[in-house]
Amino acid sequence: MTKKPILTFETYDDWDAAPMEAEYQVYNLPHGASLDSLPAKAFQTVEAFAFKGHDALDARIMDAFPKLGMIANYGVGFDTIDVAHATSRGIKVTNTPDVLTEDVADLAVGMLIAASRGMIGASDWIRSGNWAKNGAYGLQSKVSGSRVGIVGLGRIGRAVADRLVPFGCDLHYFARQPKDTPGWTHHSDIVSLAGAVDSLIICVSGGPETVGIVGAEAIAALGPNGLLVNASRGTTVDEGALLAALESGALGKAALDVFLNEPDIDARFMALDNVLLSPHQSSGTVQTRKIMGQLQRDNLAAYFAGKPLLTPVN
Amino acid sequence: MTKKPILTFETYDDWDAAPMEAEYQVYNLPHGASLDSLPAKAFQTVEAFAFKGHDALDARIMDAFPKLGMIANYGVGFDTIDVAHATSRGIKVTNTPDVLTEDVADLAVGMLIAASRGMIGASDWIRSGNWAKNGAYGLQSKVSGSRVGIVGLGRIGRAVADRLVPFGCDLHYFARQPKDTPGWTHHSDIVSLAGAVDSLIICVSGGPETVGIVGAEAIAALGPNGLLVNASRGTTVDEGALLAALESGALGKAALDVFLNEPDIDARFMALDNVLLSPHQSSGTVQTRKIMGQLQRDNLAAYFAGKPLLTPVN
Repeated sequence: MTKKPILTFETYDDWDAAPMEAEYQVYNLPHGASLDSLPAKAFQTVEAFAFKGHDALDARIMDAFPKLGMIANYGVGFDTIDVAHATSRGIKVTNTPDVLTEDVADLAVGMLIAASRGMIGASDWIRSGNWAKNGAYGLQSKVSGSRVGIVGLGRIGRAVADRLVPFGCDLHYFARQPKDTPGWTHHSDIVSLAGAVDSLIICVSGGPETVGIVGAEAIAALGPNGLLVNASRGTTVDEGALLAALESGALGKAALDVFLNEPDIDARFMALDNVLLSPHQSSGTVQTRKIMGQLQRDNLAAYFAGKPLLTPVN
Repeated sequence: MTKKPILTFETYDDWDAAPMEAEYQVYNLPHGASLDSLPAKAFQTVEAFAFKGHDALDARIMDAFPKLGMIANYGVGFDTIDVAHATSRGIKVTNTPDVLTEDVADLAVGMLIAASRGMIGASDWIRSGNWAKNGAYGLQSKVSGSRVGIVGLGRIGRAVADRLVPFGCDLHYFARQPKDTPGWTHHSDIVSLAGAVDSLIICVSGGPETVGIVGAEAIAALGPNGLLVNASRGTTVDEGALLAALESGALGKAALDVFLNEPDIDARFMALDNVLLSPHQSSGTVQTRKIMGQLQRDNLAAYFAGKPLLTPVN
């Protein structure tokens, strides 16, 4: 049987690349490569994309492949894919929800603790010889019992909140409507939420609806003792306002896994010692990435078999 | 009324030093200072110590103060105080238990997540320019659902275990006798515990009973994919075996808040990139340190008022 032709984007680990090579005729577009680098036959024949990464997948790219019927996204967020255009052309789009919820929540809680307790500065304090030379590291902020605000109480937001319950945190959240919770405080406004808490954790999805949802006013309300944690998308926070507030001390600290213009992020972040930086690795565990890859391939296989897709987004 | 004379050890924050100065005639012995630096009158008159730090408080020091009747320790651990000698002389010793349990548990969980998810290497990956230049950071290990072993299910051990429940961790613990738990697996042997888990968190107290309680065999059982977290005392682990295993790769990773010979720790730790280093800051938050200082002063006040001590250890 002839292998069906697919186009993979970016680079896959061997445990994902090998099964795709075994099943399909694979064309690949590495990060930064131009479409022109593909052979003419790819454009004529490719029926599905195994998409990955955070570059735009727009109409121009889709329309270069007339037989394209399916985009299997590796990741839960699909804000860089023009789904409206895909839908208008009858192209199915899938993602990998749920399977990465735990990892993202783990990292968000880890960033909350690491930033509150100054763990990176603490490591530097030892490795630079300061502990032996200059004595105790500076006192930090307590996590247990602190007031934590969750922006968006979807699957990831709720997983973060659940993890903070045994820390005795006083939990607040923003959602359009109050949700069924064990006594957590609902706010219908993010500025009100930011003003009520010590730390704010952004857990909403990316996409046009949440661009700048945490803006200058919310950052100001969080204040000079406040901590902002972002494990969602760089677009969800007003990054200019965030940088200015971190530089002036109007915001105490930030812990960020996501940024605008990843991976070539604003150099102003590098000069700050009140920000914990993480390279968009919220789902970056071996265990989860293997499951994400399997789900991506299962969606591809369902498409080619004419069966219902497992996790469709359109 | 004449102020009672006390001797304080190490350096106190203003919020602790000021109320002690107001209440007592305070002599101070800073870190590293010799007893000889004190005036003769101190030896003749001091009735109580406000003790702090991790240097030995032995019979020689106590016996230099004939009127000494009370040692108020700042901290839960009193393994460096010769309590047997104090008791033989009728000197009361107090500590500050419970009030720092939450902070220690928070940091232990933070170290588990930070080490599993490679958070310090992740920060370095960005700050060194590697993300922009060389792409994605390496994949790390998942915390949720992993098997975690707690060495010692006292107050701190239980607080750590409770925090890991919503992470869906498979919890195991070492204690001499099985305890009442929500289905956690008891091990009466630490080597058996280490062989059953992905990560081991040491939560026992210091002191002679726990010296080297996690030894070479347990470290080997934890293995090349294992993580050792220590937020108890440096003495509880065989540090020579630990260093050798980290250097050879026989142990995957460690996250350590405590060491032998703090703060002048073994330089071999500095050469390792598979160990997260933290400068004994498990109770190092402003919130908790203020409460610890208050409890230390409350014990001193009770002693001088002839009332029952709040948190006696002998």
